[in-house]
Amino acid sequence: MKDTNCGYCMRGELLEKFGIYICDLSVSTLILFKEQSKRGRCIVAYKDHVSEIVDISEEDRNAFFADVTRAAKAIHKVFKPDKLNYGMYGDTGCHLHVHLCPKYKGGDEWGGTFTMNPGKVYLTDGEYAEMIEKIKAAL
Amino acid sequence: MKDTNCGYCMRGELLEKFGIYICDLSVSTLILFKEQSKRGRCIVAYKDHVSEIVDISEEDRNAFFADVTRAAKAIHKVFKPDKLNYGMYGDTGCHLHVHLCPKYKGGDEWGGTFTMNPGKVYLTDGEYAEMIEKIKAAL
Repeated sequence: MKDTNCGYCMRGELLEKFGIYICDLSVSTLILFKEQSKRGRCIVAYKDHVSEIVDISEEDRNAFFADVTRAAKAIHKVFKPDKLNYGMYGDTGCHLHVHLCPKYKGGDEWGGTFTMNPGKVYLTDGEYAEMIEKIKAAL
Repeated sequence: MKDTNCGYCMRGELLEKFGIYICDLSVSTLILFKEQSKRGRCIVAYKDHVSEIVDISEEDRNAFFADVTRAAKAIHKVFKPDKLNYGMYGDTGCHLHVHLCPKYKGGDEWGGTFTMNPGKVYLTDGEYAEMIEKIKAAL
């Protein structure tokens, strides 16, 4: 069930290219997205290397979206975005995951979709750690 | 529970600007997206004018994603994309809905996210009707 080229499966260096592990949820992992042009952006990645929601059981799908909703509520609570966007892409990676992308009125990419990785805003290790503590406390 | 400016609530002209009603599902409506640069692109819109999945009950959320999965399986069956993308945005519209966007290796926007409305490919009424019949038969 693991792909040795997949950051969600292997974590470590592969994950650190774009994200920071926050914690495990029921059937998934919560990850902070390093690029923070949309403050509070996270990823919820499913526990197994499967491609899409059509490939898992109803029970696992319900548990997965319960995890996504739990993470979304924490992001709303901590960062108070005007809207949260949810995107599942992975054309080439094929490990089921959701981008949770907070949007702010007048802020970056407000009113449309969102770029996979805008490459605009990166924070210090201390700033990431502070965000992670706040998210964990709000879960 | 209805917003008179919302195409998902009111259907008719407001919906026809971008979509064609296909059928009702358990707690949602299935809509064909008129812009077809990604062949088979559809929308699943929730029955009520609520903003996000954090705003509905667990029971309704599970029913909604069962609908999304049913639509996704039909799209896979009929159009055989290499991947299906799922996006929930609606920064300004605020009516919970998912864009189901099929992706094809080497095709439009393969390997990334997808544009809200690329405005590239529109079909004839007859072609839309044929797609809708195939999707309905595969549900």
